[in-house]
Amino acid sequence: MNQTHEQIGWEGIFPEKEIPLPMRRTGLAAWRGDHVKMLDRRHLPLKEKYVLLRSTEEVANAIENMVIQGAYSISIAAGYGLALSATEQHSEDLGCVHSAAKRLIKTRPTGLAIQRMMAACLKAAEIASADGNPIRETVLAVVDQAAVALAKQGYETGKNACDLLEDGATILTHCFPDRSYVYLLMETKRRGKKIKVICSETRPYLQGARLTALCAQHLGFETQVITDGMGGFLMRQGEIDAFVTAADRVCMDGTVCNKIGTYQYALAAKSNNIPYYTLRQSGPDLESATEADIEMEYRNGEEVVNWAGVRTTPLGVTGLYPAFDITQPELVTKIVTDRGVFDSNKISDYITAPAVVTNAVV
Amino acid sequence: MNQTHEQIGWEGIFPEKEIPLPMRRTGLAAWRGDHVKMLDRRHLPLKEKYVLLRSTEEVANAIENMVIQGAYSISIAAGYGLALSATEQHSEDLGCVHSAAKRLIKTRPTGLAIQRMMAACLKAAEIASADGNPIRETVLAVVDQAAVALAKQGYETGKNACDLLEDGATILTHCFPDRSYVYLLMETKRRGKKIKVICSETRPYLQGARLTALCAQHLGFETQVITDGMGGFLMRQGEIDAFVTAADRVCMDGTVCNKIGTYQYALAAKSNNIPYYTLRQSGPDLESATEADIEMEYRNGEEVVNWAGVRTTPLGVTGLYPAFDITQPELVTKIVTDRGVFDSNKISDYITAPAVVTNAVV
Repeated sequence: MNQTHEQIGWEGIFPEKEIPLPMRRTGLAAWRGDHVKMLDRRHLPLKEKYVLLRSTEEVANAIENMVIQGAYSISIAAGYGLALSATEQHSEDLGCVHSAAKRLIKTRPTGLAIQRMMAACLKAAEIASADGNPIRETVLAVVDQAAVALAKQGYETGKNACDLLEDGATILTHCFPDRSYVYLLMETKRRGKKIKVICSETRPYLQGARLTALCAQHLGFETQVITDGMGGFLMRQGEIDAFVTAADRVCMDGTVCNKIGTYQYALAAKSNNIPYYTLRQSGPDLESATEADIEMEYRNGEEVVNWAGVRTTPLGVTGLYPAFDITQPELVTKIVTDRGVFDSNKISDYITAPAVVTNAVV
Repeated sequence: MNQTHEQIGWEGIFPEKEIPLPMRRTGLAAWRGDHVKMLDRRHLPLKEKYVLLRSTEEVANAIENMVIQGAYSISIAAGYGLALSATEQHSEDLGCVHSAAKRLIKTRPTGLAIQRMMAACLKAAEIASADGNPIRETVLAVVDQAAVALAKQGYETGKNACDLLEDGATILTHCFPDRSYVYLLMETKRRGKKIKVICSETRPYLQGARLTALCAQHLGFETQVITDGMGGFLMRQGEIDAFVTAADRVCMDGTVCNKIGTYQYALAAKSNNIPYYTLRQSGPDLESATEADIEMEYRNGEEVVNWAGVRTTPLGVTGLYPAFDITQPELVTKIVTDRGVFDSNKISDYITAPAVVTNAVV
């Protein structure tokens, strides 16, 4: 399926080889006839390793174990994982597909991207089943089309974000702001603007040190990494011109839910009159009016107190691992989407703004 | 020298064995006849290893390489390091002692504790030299007396801090708040109060995960460790009753200079109406009117991008390592000292407040 058009990225603009690895087709999850080939991001940036996944459960485990991360990337992986639950030719295994969707949704309760991808796939699968068409191929077609739409949304968002940054600006990022961030950098480079990227390492999984820094470096930007406690100080020192993250969820009132640590930086940005730009390519979640609608996700505390097999705390001391935090709308300067740039308290206008990318499912 | 009174801590109250290791005589730096024996805190909490240091340069290197840390602990180590620069019986090597003091002060530009210890030792050494008395013994006597005074100040500060905490409170700590924190816990336990300690791990050296957690656990407190990005979220969730740190320096206007990451947490505490208590047993620095008087210390960025020998970022990406940050007085609720508890903007009153501990040198 997605072995065609290997030369140009899903967004249809940049040669695939110019795109940093985590946003290439092969850097996400790729369908390979009867299995999913997934880049194991846990080994980045030092090693490029792949895992081959042959069942929905294996894909679900890979998502849970952080082989892949980033809300949109995960939704694509989950889509291919769903395809694995349907055998190649049959149109009768709708029950299996429904169970598989439930299993995949369970991997990430905070973001809605998986849920939307599953809903789109299930809808198409039901029609295929009723028409006697093969479910697997139907699901794969939905996922491939969704992946293209996601990339296009990401590119539009990146372009809009690029408009907000001055030439010579230094941005602070937290966690890995996914596709919109990569296109922000690519577009910045295309326009000949220079920016410097300071990546907050993002403990415990170090997505910032590993992925965000990797992409900025791949594209030739000056890149530095700091620990998660340092951003506020640098803002106060006048070293940061904008704070930029993605969002796992944006509520209709402009509340942002993103990787733990975002809230502290947003507070520091506000206190130092530095703009905080949230990249959220698909706009707010209609289902989430306010933060009360967000289920907060706590992960295994053991991940906080161990590092590469070395325990960091005395035995008997436990780790606590809230995975995401909440930033209230007053702390968010702009929410950047494929449909334009919105004040956080006006983000509900996204819903009625003209669509730029059609057929987007997540 | 400090082999006497092994049974009771320097503060004169608690049996040495009840005191957590990093605050025992043997857990700091101890004079051993012709060398300094120093607990290598880099191996804590999993291993108890010691290094033997036979020259001023070796002590200076140990301080620079984080074998020991914490402003007051370092000042004691530096004092013994100074003693190594004077031969046992001579009274003529004042020049060597002055050079050694300069070298030791260079190890930590941010804190003033070393500078004060060196000044006290040099003053005594000059008198000894003029009187024809041995310099080494004179310096050792100053350091031993200073260590006792530091411990007593720490205990008074811990008691004052204990008064501020409600039974059942959960405190968030950042970095290792040194002796006052340990006595805060010991006094809390002695009074039968229960508190829970959440330790922010404090990258890149993990003093929070390793030392702060170790002490709380040793004393039987419920102890959890989080990453440096999580404290703000927990404050917002209502999980934290007080934020507690030490300070490497307090200015006369109430500005606090402490481990990088403190400022972000202080902002989050203020935003969530949670008190921030700074433990600073010896009060403000007369020499520092405002933050303009503080030299900000940047350490080697390689320490940010490596972990236990494993590189966390792509090669070519550099780390940036500001070691301390600045928290303005408005964000500090109370500064707790041996002479009582002060509003941050009234901390200059410390200078004229009645001394509780006499002969304190740092």
